[in-house]
Amino acid sequence: MSDQLKQRVYEANMALQRHGLVVFTWGNVSGIDRDRGVVAIKPSGVSYADLTPQGIVLVDLQGNVIEGDLRPSSDTPTHLELYRSFPGLGGICHTHSRYATMWAQAQREIPCFGTTHADHFYGPVPVTDALVRDEIDGPYEQNTGRVIVRRFAQLDPLQMPAVLVANHGPFTWGKDPAQSVENAVVLEQVAMMAYGTLLVNARQSGIAQALLDRHYLRKHGKDAYYGQANKAEE
Amino acid sequence: MSDQLKQRVYEANMALQRHGLVVFTWGNVSGIDRDRGVVAIKPSGVSYADLTPQGIVLVDLQGNVIEGDLRPSSDTPTHLELYRSFPGLGGICHTHSRYATMWAQAQREIPCFGTTHADHFYGPVPVTDALVRDEIDGPYEQNTGRVIVRRFAQLDPLQMPAVLVANHGPFTWGKDPAQSVENAVVLEQVAMMAYGTLLVNARQSGIAQALLDRHYLRKHGKDAYYGQANKAEE
Amino acid sequence: MSDQLKQRVYEANMALQRHGLVVFTWGNVSGIDRDRGVVAIKPSGVSYADLTPQGIVLVDLQGNVIEGDLRPSSDTPTHLELYRSFPGLGGICHTHSRYATMWAQAQREIPCFGTTHADHFYGPVPVTDALVRDEIDGPYEQNTGRVIVRRFAQLDPLQMPAVLVANHGPFTWGKDPAQSVENAVVLEQVAMMAYGTLLVNARQSGIAQALLDRHYLRKHGKDAYYGQANKAEE
Amino acid sequence: MSDQLKQRVYEANMALQRHGLVVFTWGNVSGIDRDRGVVAIKPSGVSYADLTPQGIVLVDLQGNVIEGDLRPSSDTPTHLELYRSFPGLGGICHTHSRYATMWAQAQREIPCFGTTHADHFYGPVPVTDALVRDEIDGPYEQNTGRVIVRRFAQLDPLQMPAVLVANHGPFTWGKDPAQSVENAVVLEQVAMMAYGTLLVNARQSGIAQALLDRHYLRKHGKDAYYGQANKAEE
Repeated sequence: MSDQLKQRVYEANMALQRHGLVVFTWGNVSGIDRDRGVVAIKPSGVSYADLTPQGIVLVDLQGNVIEGDLRPSSDTPTHLELYRSFPGLGGICHTHSRYATMWAQAQREIPCFGTTHADHFYGPVPVTDALVRDEIDGPYEQNTGRVIVRRFAQLDPLQMPAVLVANHGPFTWGKDPAQSVENAVVLEQVAMMAYGTLLVNARQSGIAQALLDRHYLRKHGKDAYYGQANKAEE
Repeated sequence: MSDQLKQRVYEANMALQRHGLVVFTWGNVSGIDRDRGVVAIKPSGVSYADLTPQGIVLVDLQGNVIEGDLRPSSDTPTHLELYRSFPGLGGICHTHSRYATMWAQAQREIPCFGTTHADHFYGPVPVTDALVRDEIDGPYEQNTGRVIVRRFAQLDPLQMPAVLVANHGPFTWGKDPAQSVENAVVLEQVAMMAYGTLLVNARQSGIAQALLDRHYLRKHGKDAYYGQANKAEE
Repeated sequence: MSDQLKQRVYEANMALQRHGLVVFTWGNVSGIDRDRGVVAIKPSGVSYADLTPQGIVLVDLQGNVIEGDLRPSSDTPTHLELYRSFPGLGGICHTHSRYATMWAQAQREIPCFGTTHADHFYGPVPVTDALVRDEIDGPYEQNTGRVIVRRFAQLDPLQMPAVLVANHGPFTWGKDPAQSVENAVVLEQVAMMAYGTLLVNARQSGIAQALLDRHYLRKHGKDAYYGQANKAEE
Repeated sequence: MSDQLKQRVYEANMALQRHGLVVFTWGNVSGIDRDRGVVAIKPSGVSYADLTPQGIVLVDLQGNVIEGDLRPSSDTPTHLELYRSFPGLGGICHTHSRYATMWAQAQREIPCFGTTHADHFYGPVPVTDALVRDEIDGPYEQNTGRVIVRRFAQLDPLQMPAVLVANHGPFTWGKDPAQSVENAVVLEQVAMMAYGTLLVNARQSGIAQALLDRHYLRKHGKDAYYGQANKAEE
């Protein structure tokens, strides 16, 4: 059970590197076994070349290490806050990928400028408030999770599997670790194309609600008709 | 006959990936056998790693599946609308390539800023109208084809083998599937260089008609003198 | 003799591709044997995968084919005009490399913003006049050479081995074909960094003349002290 | 002893190329043996393909060659000035990496826009004054070191292991040659993301001091809790 979870988290972390989203040790992926309340996460500061499935650390939802010789990622309290607050999450990914980080640093949400975005994210990708001094000086990594949760008061994390932490970078998530990485890849593409869209047409606004609905629901609604998944029932 | 068409469409889809124009399963290429009225197209949502010539789906011009176990690309109705409206087309390619998509999202045509553009596209690359609500809520993918066809009322699709669908991305075409991909590659280069041209000189306008004529006709006119094609007659 | 020249021109053309400066068949390099008045140049429209030393075409300075079964590059008359006008040139390179072409399309010279530029080009990289209608409708490729030569009325082509043809792209040259390609690589880097410099600081102007002199002469003057070339005499 | 130093400097120079920070021979890394007062540095103008550990040149702190058949990098006097002025430095790296050079050419410091920056550099990355005519015409490379040292009058080089030389490019340093290269890689990422941040939000200012403190000290303070280094004491 644990070995499978550690293997999946290991593979998702390695995929992060393969997709060109990380430099050195920047970035981490975790996964959760909801039945047992166990979270598997990348160890802190370990290079991808040295990472092994055995090196993945297991912690409980309060952050106590259950299994593993290495210290878990310093971002672990952020992951845990998200798992506790958003019950639908099975995997979480954090990177400093270039274009998503630009928007996070600029403290601007990513407008939904096109169907690539609408296929994956149901609306503009939100940016959190900047942490205030007390939040920074207190349990900083957990508070990073809290500003994300606060930003989602009116948002469904399953329809918006990405957020930009102000002055920092993106977090993405999904039903499992692999999907959280897939959403990180998509977010980076979307962020890059939105950046260029803005430079070509500074006054461009987001797409019509009808187009957003059409594309998002084409892939994610109960009547989804993209891919081969519902083929059998046709 | 069908096997050759499927093989060519398979190879054109794989070329799309080799040229770095696609992420995950975004993008599809089709080809047509005009004599038999058969269109071969990529199956929906299948990764390039899993794609095989056998997986290519055959449909008729009304979209009925003739051969293949997989569901055809969700963009099939767009391809079919173009094949029905533009008799000279032998292959069609759709991508979300980065720079072309920026222009599509910005809803700006790509001005003809130089000879690279003029060598391949006879004038600015057009952008369609945005689909209105009824077009989005109706047969959306077919209507995407219709806004393209409407945009070409005054344009010759053989002299302008590319279009930007507003808020979406590019479609390109050619005499066969391979050429539609080649035009997608050129469009991406042209879009990238036009983007930079605009940033370096926001007031730059398109090149003179005489230069456009010279370059386009040097490669495409009856007196073309580029390449080795007419060498024998010299 | 001819075989050596063809081999060097072949290798320089292949280097063009290896450095990522060309897409498809865009770009060509030539070299000259001044003693015999023979120019070797890439054949027109031949892909780099199919290019061989034997495919390189030999022409005289009037453009008559001396050796080779293929048609020479359609840009041959431009190369010849430059060889006839600038006696110090041993090799010429033409590309549509991305950043240099942006500046050419924007019709702006590349300011000398830093020492990378000053190490190789003695001042701003010039841009030609746009060709007028009569020049386009006449012997177009030769006239492209003429507008370059006209632009160099007050410039020394050996101190400025690069030019941007307006609405088109860069030509670079050197003492031999390999050096013309090296200058194309440097020009692309310089063009890219100048582009970013302008976006970060729109009001930035070129570096001081003293710094330009220092860097250019450090590498190219009679007292050059960069590299190992003059080591023995020390 | 010398052989180990030469090997480390050789490997750091090769890493520079592997990380895509150099074109041709642009860039050099040095290392120092403080006990013996010996500096090892890349030879001038030697390509990375031809570089060997044996080719690394040894000089003393006054620039006299102690060992090696090749001329040391023309930037050697800059390195030596830094080693003499900043006793904590064990390795120095100089490149013309694209994005860092853009900022240097634009003569703008890189604001601390986010935590990626704050994790490595304690504040904005400074830019030197431009050298004045007398500094350029005098011992230019040594004077380049002097303008860096002058810029650090109020800065701790161990907390700010990077500088942009105006109109030129970046220098970075660290406790050894490898760390100077690591800082060059980070600087390039930070410069790239700051560039995009500025284009997305031209009015963005640096992050709060509290956030800068938190991130920098999380990795570098005496209570650092990132990575596995202090794990044993926990």
